[in-house]
Amino acid sequence: MTLNNIQLDSNGRLKHFLTTEGLSRDLLLDILDHAESFAGVGDRAVKKVPLLRGKTIVNLFFEPSTRTRTTFELAAKRLSADVLNINYAQSSASKGESLQDTLQTLAAMHCDMFVVRHASSGAAHFIAQHVSPRIRIVNAGDGNHAHPTQAMLDMFTIRRHKPNFSKLKVAIVGDVLHSRVARSEIHALTTLGVNEVRVIAPETLLPTSVESLGVQVFHDLQTGLRDVDVIVMLRLQRERMRSALLPSEHEYFYHYGLTEKKLSAAKDDAIVMHPGPINRGVEIDTHVADGKRSVILQQVSHGIAIRMAVMAMCMGSLADGQEQS
Amino acid sequence: MTLNNIQLDSNGRLKHFLTTEGLSRDLLLDILDHAESFAGVGDRAVKKVPLLRGKTIVNLFFEPSTRTRTTFELAAKRLSADVLNINYAQSSASKGESLQDTLQTLAAMHCDMFVVRHASSGAAHFIAQHVSPRIRIVNAGDGNHAHPTQAMLDMFTIRRHKPNFSKLKVAIVGDVLHSRVARSEIHALTTLGVNEVRVIAPETLLPTSVESLGVQVFHDLQTGLRDVDVIVMLRLQRERMRSALLPSEHEYFYHYGLTEKKLSAAKDDAIVMHPGPINRGVEIDTHVADGKRSVILQQVSHGIAIRMAVMAMCMGSLADGQEQS
Amino acid sequence: MTLNNIQLDSNGRLKHFLTTEGLSRDLLLDILDHAESFAGVGDRAVKKVPLLRGKTIVNLFFEPSTRTRTTFELAAKRLSADVLNINYAQSSASKGESLQDTLQTLAAMHCDMFVVRHASSGAAHFIAQHVSPRIRIVNAGDGNHAHPTQAMLDMFTIRRHKPNFSKLKVAIVGDVLHSRVARSEIHALTTLGVNEVRVIAPETLLPTSVESLGVQVFHDLQTGLRDVDVIVMLRLQRERMRSALLPSEHEYFYHYGLTEKKLSAAKDDAIVMHPGPINRGVEIDTHVADGKRSVILQQVSHGIAIRMAVMAMCMGSLADGQEQS
Repeated sequence: MTLNNIQLDSNGRLKHFLTTEGLSRDLLLDILDHAESFAGVGDRAVKKVPLLRGKTIVNLFFEPSTRTRTTFELAAKRLSADVLNINYAQSSASKGESLQDTLQTLAAMHCDMFVVRHASSGAAHFIAQHVSPRIRIVNAGDGNHAHPTQAMLDMFTIRRHKPNFSKLKVAIVGDVLHSRVARSEIHALTTLGVNEVRVIAPETLLPTSVESLGVQVFHDLQTGLRDVDVIVMLRLQRERMRSALLPSEHEYFYHYGLTEKKLSAAKDDAIVMHPGPINRGVEIDTHVADGKRSVILQQVSHGIAIRMAVMAMCMGSLADGQEQS
Repeated sequence: MTLNNIQLDSNGRLKHFLTTEGLSRDLLLDILDHAESFAGVGDRAVKKVPLLRGKTIVNLFFEPSTRTRTTFELAAKRLSADVLNINYAQSSASKGESLQDTLQTLAAMHCDMFVVRHASSGAAHFIAQHVSPRIRIVNAGDGNHAHPTQAMLDMFTIRRHKPNFSKLKVAIVGDVLHSRVARSEIHALTTLGVNEVRVIAPETLLPTSVESLGVQVFHDLQTGLRDVDVIVMLRLQRERMRSALLPSEHEYFYHYGLTEKKLSAAKDDAIVMHPGPINRGVEIDTHVADGKRSVILQQVSHGIAIRMAVMAMCMGSLADGQEQS
Repeated sequence: MTLNNIQLDSNGRLKHFLTTEGLSRDLLLDILDHAESFAGVGDRAVKKVPLLRGKTIVNLFFEPSTRTRTTFELAAKRLSADVLNINYAQSSASKGESLQDTLQTLAAMHCDMFVVRHASSGAAHFIAQHVSPRIRIVNAGDGNHAHPTQAMLDMFTIRRHKPNFSKLKVAIVGDVLHSRVARSEIHALTTLGVNEVRVIAPETLLPTSVESLGVQVFHDLQTGLRDVDVIVMLRLQRERMRSALLPSEHEYFYHYGLTEKKLSAAKDDAIVMHPGPINRGVEIDTHVADGKRSVILQQVSHGIAIRMAVMAMCMGSLADGQEQS
């Protein structure tokens, strides 16, 4: 509870975006509605709006991720903010400065927002709790814990194709145990009132008592996909292979890789999502990834709109009327 | 032919800039004329024009080059574009993502142009053929194949000093075999109707049947320089030494290094060019590099103007009248 | 004298900012006054002024420093300049290009200012002497020699708390021998007419004949701190430990670490400064660093204002009236 409330200001408006857990249905819908208003910006001749002009947004990455950093950098620039990229691993940390001192130093420079990526679960919350109250934090992925902008861009993509969440059956397939994406998706989907959320994975790749999150568990892919409207494939971290949780890529693909044959168990108009980058032939067959059910590249486009929306909302840069629409 | 046509849209206007090969004389002159209009921007108090405001240009570098990246970054910023620098070697590639997936992902983010540097010949063409039709590609050097903006800034520099191409004798000196600059120069010079193009190099540093490109071959520097108006020195890739193509730097300089004495074989008003960075005392004597015949630093300045022109033309951001002038 | 005059144009106005040594009291006060006018920019909704729009500022870092680079990058962006970050160690240097050629190349690209960080004392002066006269140089730290913007942000911080320099006793504590900050502070403090400047350090960490700089020398911390108004703690470069100049971190802290007990020797309203990053428990106790006498984070904020002032002054972008105020 404490962990979630930190995301809201005293008027219940979004201040930090750390996790989808504990946020209200209305707030999640609000994010989606704002993202709709930004979704067209990428198609304009001038792909910029002046909402965050003169604001300083810091990409504070404790683990490298060109892809995620790029999406946040683009979103910030299209909001006209100034962007600083700090790869913490290469920075003052090597001079022995504490994290707390680094944060206070950046705050003293009048930075406005930190987009935080960290290998440890809870890092974004820790930073939000310890940073100057003027600074906004957006979680760009912390350990196995949360990746809330990825979850929201998936919600956005789902809604574009299937507007009525309450009728949907959604299957999340793969390494749920190590996936911050899966956790954030499950919280968002259940809050948005999806009819049924399923996780499909071998026993070794599921958290203990995953059912307590309100999901149905399947170990067989085809059984789990029966009649679903949405399939969320998770990326298989290949380094997990080494840890003996998995027999081999080949065997994983045989059992849990999404092929056209297995996809036929789902509804005829089911959509296939993947957070990227894709391991073709490991978690997903290349024909499915590039096929007409795949909305993977739409997810990428929507990711910019969602990040613009979240950044603008946290910065309080949207008019009150918009905020409460 | 197919390879070249890909550079033009259905109206014959520049869409991608991949190579000087196969482009018409008029189009090359058009690039030079546009660059003239940008050449003054660097001298203004406010070194910016708003032509590409709200566009996103990605420096997609598969091999590192601070110098080339810097020129494209500056050119893009002076056109008011937003710039993303992606060092592919350090990015998602390490997570096993395919090139094709990386390109599609960047396209889905509504990026407008990729400036591509790659160690493999043909990479820029490959990318232009496989990328979304909305994306423009500028080749910033691919393997031994082409470096067309370097060639065009050299044409620009030549024209500033010697306006009548048809009267000129131009000598290209050095490692033609491995030089993408040399290939792009030769195509540009012959298309622009230069009177004579010479290549001067040891047999081991010339491509087989180089004569088929329309050049005269010389193995002796002083003989080759006789009466030339323009001397283009090529950079000697020191790593070639190891491959036994060359005896030693010392011996190379003795035979092919440009000294004031050897320069005296050329016309009195001959200009000396070099794409940089210079290996002083290897391919060029320091007195020549800094001497009054050298236009090496002018080449650098003109490089910004040429890149601004090519970017603006490929993005279709110049008025129709200008395009056809 | 020659070294200092290079900083001024023929009208005695700031052209390069290389060292506080040899600058007049009026000029130092002018920098402080300009910084006052920029100090409020960080608190505005739009943290930008258009003074350097269309100028190109290059962070030319020969040794890496994320922290210092970040402050200059922020200052430049808040002045609306375009910023290029060049990490020279990773750039053309590796292709064997000489420093002189790199500088000339950047000048030919019509860059306007180089912010230079270098491990060798005198590097910024060398560059100012050899670069095109159109380029302005700001020293961001050269070897053990100077770090003038750090000194001036400290002067700014002191003046905010203690407006009358002539009444102040200032103590500089720690590794004066290796500190470019200490040198620049001492010159600034004596030029501004501070009543007394003390250095407090073990014999091994003091330059020979440091008294010639106009300072009083103390080897005992508590004696040296008696009645001072301002305490400037220096960062201890841990790598010095290895060089046998110091026995151990523990012993150093015992003798020269600033604790609340030792601080009580100073005046009741003495302020404590540190250039950061802090080694907590080595040169300063964590309670003092975070205590109410500490102005360390204010120094960081003021650092942006000082850098904006120096950049704008060197670029001649302030009105004449302002310059002479």
